[in-house]
Amino acid sequence: MSHEAKNVLEIIRVYLAAGPTEGLRRFLREVHYADLAEALPELNLAQQIKIIRMSEPNKAAAVLYELDRSEVVALLEGLGERRVALILREMSTDDAADLLGEMPREEQERFLSLMGTTEAEDVQELLVYEPDTAGGIMTTEYVAVKKDLTADEAINSLRATAPDAETVYYVYVIDRNNMLAGVVSLRELILSAPSTRVADIMRTEVVSVNVRTDQEEVARIVGKYDFLAVPVVDDERKLLGIVTVDDVLDVLEEEATEDILRLAHVEYEGRYFDASVLKRAGKRLPWLVVLLFGGLLAASVIANFSATLSAITALAFFMTVMAGGPGNLATQTLAVVVRGLATGEVSPRGVLVVITGEVGVAVLVGVVSGAIMAVVAYFWQGEAVLGFIVGVSLTASMIIAAVIGSFVPLIINRFGVDPALASGPFITTLMDVCSMLIYFSLATFFLHRYPI
Amino acid sequence: MSHEAKNVLEIIRVYLAAGPTEGLRRFLREVHYADLAEALPELNLAQQIKIIRMSEPNKAAAVLYELDRSEVVALLEGLGERRVALILREMSTDDAADLLGEMPREEQERFLSLMGTTEAEDVQELLVYEPDTAGGIMTTEYVAVKKDLTADEAINSLRATAPDAETVYYVYVIDRNNMLAGVVSLRELILSAPSTRVADIMRTEVVSVNVRTDQEEVARIVGKYDFLAVPVVDDERKLLGIVTVDDVLDVLEEEATEDILRLAHVEYEGRYFDASVLKRAGKRLPWLVVLLFGGLLAASVIANFSATLSAITALAFFMTVMAGGPGNLATQTLAVVVRGLATGEVSPRGVLVVITGEVGVAVLVGVVSGAIMAVVAYFWQGEAVLGFIVGVSLTASMIIAAVIGSFVPLIINRFGVDPALASGPFITTLMDVCSMLIYFSLATFFLHRYPI
Repeated sequence: MSHEAKNVLEIIRVYLAAGPTEGLRRFLREVHYADLAEALPELNLAQQIKIIRMSEPNKAAAVLYELDRSEVVALLEGLGERRVALILREMSTDDAADLLGEMPREEQERFLSLMGTTEAEDVQELLVYEPDTAGGIMTTEYVAVKKDLTADEAINSLRATAPDAETVYYVYVIDRNNMLAGVVSLRELILSAPSTRVADIMRTEVVSVNVRTDQEEVARIVGKYDFLAVPVVDDERKLLGIVTVDDVLDVLEEEATEDILRLAHVEYEGRYFDASVLKRAGKRLPWLVVLLFGGLLAASVIANFSATLSAITALAFFMTVMAGGPGNLATQTLAVVVRGLATGEVSPRGVLVVITGEVGVAVLVGVVSGAIMAVVAYFWQGEAVLGFIVGVSLTASMIIAAVIGSFVPLIINRFGVDPALASGPFITTLMDVCSMLIYFSLATFFLHRYPI
Repeated sequence: MSHEAKNVLEIIRVYLAAGPTEGLRRFLREVHYADLAEALPELNLAQQIKIIRMSEPNKAAAVLYELDRSEVVALLEGLGERRVALILREMSTDDAADLLGEMPREEQERFLSLMGTTEAEDVQELLVYEPDTAGGIMTTEYVAVKKDLTADEAINSLRATAPDAETVYYVYVIDRNNMLAGVVSLRELILSAPSTRVADIMRTEVVSVNVRTDQEEVARIVGKYDFLAVPVVDDERKLLGIVTVDDVLDVLEEEATEDILRLAHVEYEGRYFDASVLKRAGKRLPWLVVLLFGGLLAASVIANFSATLSAITALAFFMTVMAGGPGNLATQTLAVVVRGLATGEVSPRGVLVVITGEVGVAVLVGVVSGAIMAVVAYFWQGEAVLGFIVGVSLTASMIIAAVIGSFVPLIINRFGVDPALASGPFITTLMDVCSMLIYFSLATFFLHRYPI
């Protein structure tokens, strides 16, 4: 919990314990919804209901949206229908759709019936879109004016409609058929002469996204062009809604989390630590078992060389070094390539440049590491041949690690699959097999000729 | 390169080859700066200079800001002083400070002298702040009105000053001493009766950040409260500037990149793939060598048990499984904990809850994995004792992996150090030592009693 939320929780507890109701009501009017939402889950359900009841409906709406979905249903049940109806009407349509979208069908319909008819219809329309597309994260509360109004008429029309809109980011201009015709900023409207026609001051090259565009692409566009919002249109360029920058911030956080967890081979969506231990274990176990069987491949490679191994036990000493070094280099390569693809630093066209660069790095790093370990092996075990085998196979394995670590994410990205699916544990398990094969093949070859 | 930028590059090339100058000029007026900035580095310097010269100064300013700093200096030199002066004046002060901040002192001063005096002073003030603090990412072009104006007077004062401001996000209200007194939205100003005093409609609880606040904390606040901008104040609450949401998007991208690379133990700032192979190798080599020496610790553990190992060579077959499984579990645990700390899902106070939860996961996962591998070892090698040793030590190592993978990032976070510094390769190298110690200790103990 943030320190702001801790303070809020402290104050609420004091009020709940002894303070006058009016003081609490005043405090709830002043507190920021984000802090209140963070503090609320620390209270018991009865206290939560009391706090929400005493908050103004628009603040209550904002708080409910921030809470975990699993907690919201119980809270809504406890609040009673009249209060819920008040709160839902204060919610922006995209937030209401997000909230209701994760509820069972039956409760969804019950709560929808508590909203105003037009709002319920808007929300139902939003419920149709996939949650991770532009349609799923857009709001229908944007500000648009008709193309043939004057600046003055446009401002008046805004005065009439704007209070409904989340925030006035841009004023979109539409033609008679609701098709997106242009965009103008509130500032440009205000600074123009009152009789200027909107069509004359609007910019006509508007960047928009299709309603089915993936949310990652939407985030990329908003970030790249430094937009506060981007309009969402259907296939006929009819304006359906806008995606605002605060929703994009959420998408970016979600995607960064996904990338990191996927690299570590954890398949999880939503808040990981809220899930039960059993559920967390259930999600992680299958992959770990698959990787263990991958590890058995390396084991069977070693078993094939058991004659060599029983002849020179010292070979086993260096097995962890031989598996770890190339594994670490592969993990590094994978991370820089996956991140480079996510930020656009690596373009799909530059595959060859990236691979040759990373292999170049591995050659330098591999030769130095190999030389160091060769010297260590020689002085520790007093056998030049062993030093040679350790050094050469470490160098070779590291170069292969760079090829695998860069090639795998680039190739799967080319096929339109998220490169972060190329997980670190998967790559290092694969590298274990390669490293052991190289190490023991080289050992068998040389030790037959130059026995220790 | 994005597909939009590819199109832009294509069109520019056609114009440069044969097209009329006027057509190119018109195209440059319409193209978005972000696309132009992406396409520009693909052209040679002479072409780049031509394109920038033909672009309007404010677009040229936006493009230059997006380019890599290493490319900008040559471009500025080629443009000539008059054009550079025109462009620098169009730049917002925070962008100009960013750009000049990375130049050598001498060139910095030469370019500063080309700007207007007041702007140069503003930029010089910004150059004082650390780049990764609120002061380093703020802009001084915000909109503020005095507390005792009326709504009408305030709008008029905005009409006079606003064109200088990046975008009007919020209108800040200041008192006689320039101290931050409140905030009001442009919409509230417009919708109020003209004679209302600003002091009466402003909200007085303004969230602000100190000029020395770390940029990650600034990003957290903007993201949490869904702000479009946050005011920056000094220790006396005097308003110095604002940090806007587009700069926060950049910070978030930067921080996510840092987290991912640190988890993979790559210490790199800025654009990794722009650096030479030699430089990249130089940055990554030291860590890999340190980790190799860490791996030697595991090797020396194994060497201590060489008698056991030479008696039962089959023990070596399972070494990669025994190192890999717990290593993978530790990597997973580390990733979920580090990410949980970054998103605020894990709070520093909940250390014990997180560790016990993750250990619970590891007990379940460990017992299942251990049982599976025990059966595999038994059937493959036909030795019940070996199966038992493999199963028990795998289970034990996985539980320890969960403790280390959650404990290390939580502890270093507690000491105010970035938890992402607890890298995966470091943790897995440490785990190798633990796993080998458990495996061979158990093997020695049991095989003395129940020899195979």
